[in-house]
Amino acid sequence: MERALRPETALVSVMHANNELGTVQAIEAIARLTRAAGVPLHVDGVQALGKIPVDVEGLGVDLYSMSGHKLYAPKGVGALYVRKGTSMAPIAYGGHHERDRRPGTENVPGIAAFGAAAELALRTLAAEGERLAALRDRLETAVLGRVPRTGVNGSPSNRTPNTSNMYFDGIDGEALVIALDLRGFAVSTGAACSSGALAPSHVLTAIGLSADRARSSMRFSLGRSTTAGQVDALVEALVAAVEHLRRISAHA
Amino acid sequence: MERALRPETALVSVMHANNELGTVQAIEAIARLTRAAGVPLHVDGVQALGKIPVDVEGLGVDLYSMSGHKLYAPKGVGALYVRKGTSMAPIAYGGHHERDRRPGTENVPGIAAFGAAAELALRTLAAEGERLAALRDRLETAVLGRVPRTGVNGSPSNRTPNTSNMYFDGIDGEALVIALDLRGFAVSTGAACSSGALAPSHVLTAIGLSADRARSSMRFSLGRSTTAGQVDALVEALVAAVEHLRRISAHA
Repeated sequence: MERALRPETALVSVMHANNELGTVQAIEAIARLTRAAGVPLHVDGVQALGKIPVDVEGLGVDLYSMSGHKLYAPKGVGALYVRKGTSMAPIAYGGHHERDRRPGTENVPGIAAFGAAAELALRTLAAEGERLAALRDRLETAVLGRVPRTGVNGSPSNRTPNTSNMYFDGIDGEALVIALDLRGFAVSTGAACSSGALAPSHVLTAIGLSADRARSSMRFSLGRSTTAGQVDALVEALVAAVEHLRRISAHA
Repeated sequence: MERALRPETALVSVMHANNELGTVQAIEAIARLTRAAGVPLHVDGVQALGKIPVDVEGLGVDLYSMSGHKLYAPKGVGALYVRKGTSMAPIAYGGHHERDRRPGTENVPGIAAFGAAAELALRTLAAEGERLAALRDRLETAVLGRVPRTGVNGSPSNRTPNTSNMYFDGIDGEALVIALDLRGFAVSTGAACSSGALAPSHVLTAIGLSADRARSSMRFSLGRSTTAGQVDALVEALVAAVEHLRRISAHA
């Protein structure tokens, strides 16, 4: 990181929590380096807000972006924290809304809903975090115990409680997505932002997975409505689907 | 217009209907010129959609932008018509949503609501247009008849049915806004995009009004819920407020 900061570096932008793995980045440490170098730090907190505590002062960030729908507010509304004194230029011009930062009629009902959703998320953060982490551990323990040649991708401890990313060696991830979809479970092989892409996840290859293992990997997301019963049913569906897909490919 | 098209002109962008006056621009004529010159034409239809018929083929536009909340869809959702073959570059990068044109999770409920609102607006367009034009004419006829030194700004015929812009000589527009607000009527001296601005409306000065007359001008917007009774009550409030403000300024 220190070596990545060059004299011409204008901005550092880092995810707070990764969207595919849930891995939480060491923002405080990054902020100490960027601050010492006088470079503004933007953090994409879309996957973190509502999942883990977020304290822009403690983190030492200059800019922090958030999205409402990730914490059950309506889609189409987000927020950007701007530390006082951070210099910003708009990317669109026209009206003088939002102190000349972004033209366009403000979505006031969406903003109000986002505020209410954020208050609710903050109030339930600790309890809901514990509940989700327990469900995620229940899922992973069962899968690792019952499905051979599988494992958890990414940091097992340093991550948001709602995300699990596992590989299933020898399995084509897209085939497993379809098999689970037929059984009523929506999972994904990567980010929705790249859905339809045929290349293996750039996140998984960046942490050292082979292309084959990345292609066999699956992201499971848990949320406010997820129950232990659903997790148990998912495990059964996974055991059956992986066994079936492996049998098919052994005969092919 | 023909003289404004230079060899280096990359794009022509025009409002379909003006936001302060409702004046409808001669888009077909402009499109003939831009097409002959091989320059793409963008039309801002935000104030026109749902107020007057919009036929992108008939108009001959290449790009046409729309906003949901102007036709009673939720705020925070819009649309851009893109004629097949029009070349476009994104202004933000990241995800591959919307065919790489704009990254970010799509607001699907908002999009569906916009579609439903547009269908409803189209179905009621002719009848609602007649109703609003009659209410607007009722407002203007009463004001012109009862308030001295007043007049209608902009084209009296070539405009959307929901907008009336009138001047009240000798009156400070902002004072009239407040006086009407106290009586329960929300009107504006210009565009919400410029609210708080002290300069006279650039639209009104562009059509030749003096700064004083522009500052004395008021935009009245009628909508789906506006009734004849409300228009009559507004006329009474206007007569009283203008008389009161003129009396005060005569004594100052």
